[in-house]
Amino acid sequence: MIIQKYKKDFVHSYTLGAVVTIELIKNRPNSIIEILICDQTSEDIINELQYLSKKNHFEIRKNNKAFNILSDKENCYIIGVFKKTVMHLEDKKPHICLVNPSNAGNLGTIIRSAVGFGIINIAIIKPAVDCFDPKIIRASMGAIFYANIEYFENFEEYYNIYPDYYYYPFMLKSSNDLRKISFNNTNSSSLIFGNEQTGLSDSFLEIGLPIRIEHSKRIDSLNLAQAVNIALYEFTKYQNFN
Amino acid sequence: MIIQKYKKDFVHSYTLGAVVTIELIKNRPNSIIEILICDQTSEDIINELQYLSKKNHFEIRKNNKAFNILSDKENCYIIGVFKKTVMHLEDKKPHICLVNPSNAGNLGTIIRSAVGFGIINIAIIKPAVDCFDPKIIRASMGAIFYANIEYFENFEEYYNIYPDYYYYPFMLKSSNDLRKISFNNTNSSSLIFGNEQTGLSDSFLEIGLPIRIEHSKRIDSLNLAQAVNIALYEFTKYQNFN
Repeated sequence: MIIQKYKKDFVHSYTLGAVVTIELIKNRPNSIIEILICDQTSEDIINELQYLSKKNHFEIRKNNKAFNILSDKENCYIIGVFKKTVMHLEDKKPHICLVNPSNAGNLGTIIRSAVGFGIINIAIIKPAVDCFDPKIIRASMGAIFYANIEYFENFEEYYNIYPDYYYYPFMLKSSNDLRKISFNNTNSSSLIFGNEQTGLSDSFLEIGLPIRIEHSKRIDSLNLAQAVNIALYEFTKYQNFN
Repeated sequence: MIIQKYKKDFVHSYTLGAVVTIELIKNRPNSIIEILICDQTSEDIINELQYLSKKNHFEIRKNNKAFNILSDKENCYIIGVFKKTVMHLEDKKPHICLVNPSNAGNLGTIIRSAVGFGIINIAIIKPAVDCFDPKIIRASMGAIFYANIEYFENFEEYYNIYPDYYYYPFMLKSSNDLRKISFNNTNSSSLIFGNEQTGLSDSFLEIGLPIRIEHSKRIDSLNLAQAVNIALYEFTKYQNFN
């Protein structure tokens, strides 16, 4: 296959580096198109890949040029090429809903935290960054391959599929302090967060139970990834993690 | 003054952009050497700067070249040049102690969260990134100008100055779940975090009350900024913020 810099309309994407490529092989082996190595790839990694390729039926190919085209970081000696798959949210499981996230690094960090707190279903409302961008995959450290990420044209489209969910929009205009509220003891919950710059529009004050994360007036706001992280910590407070 | 790209051994540093420069002027007016503008700086910002300069006695100078030398981002139309000042931790106030932080973006985000949760005293154990790096100042969104950041040669040096503090090292090897512990009701507390890659060494298991942040085994660890963020949220849980 011809290797070109990633574009949103490709049907495939890339994992750049060992950590993310191993997560791809472990969790989405069927979506692998091929695994690329180069002259710098170490012997033990090649051995491990050969072992994994027998188990998971993928091809390993040497392609030095691909590394020049795709990677601007040093220390990238393995690339995974994989088919982007349409993912669907699970019903009756907790969701995070991100409305118009625009920053790639942020989204990667959020996916990693979410999987870290056992919340693997992430609804994304368009317009939004493309979760298959190799930068996001790298920022998620491969956690994306544990997650179900589904895009929706607008919030209503998502809401209409899950009308019975408990919705918790996080917004500074709410007067409900996260530290004082208790979440419904149900898996059918959705934590909603707005865009990095603009937050959620006032219309979300009418949806479910809006929540505010208290902080000092010395800062304008927590950044999006930090807000999601705290919300997840509190939401999963009584869970055991596997 | 001659403008050169920032180096660690300079006695001055730079704020790049309006947000951070305004925080500098508001919080550390006495450390300002000069404020630089360029042909693209808008009229209203210049008017505001002129008003502030009368109140705070600093010079405003046009220097287009400085923007080429210092800024690789667009949208940077103000630069503050300021003297780096030696800062000291406050006694009997809560501290964060970062052991060998190595990532500039992370440290900026941590400073911003810390100030956001009202913890403005940050001990940094060397070797570590330089908090006056303009990248860190920018990542903190100027919150650094509210904080007292003091560097120590090693952990013992810090510990010996505050022997009566309650120490809480955050480490995965601890068996004390953050969700189940209660912090001592005292301001003389220090939350300790290790380096991004290596965490804290085992010797910290002997210090104070080590704490673990639970997460799913699907990820290796939360990233440092996320861990600090959650610890701060929990530590300040019963506080009111101003």
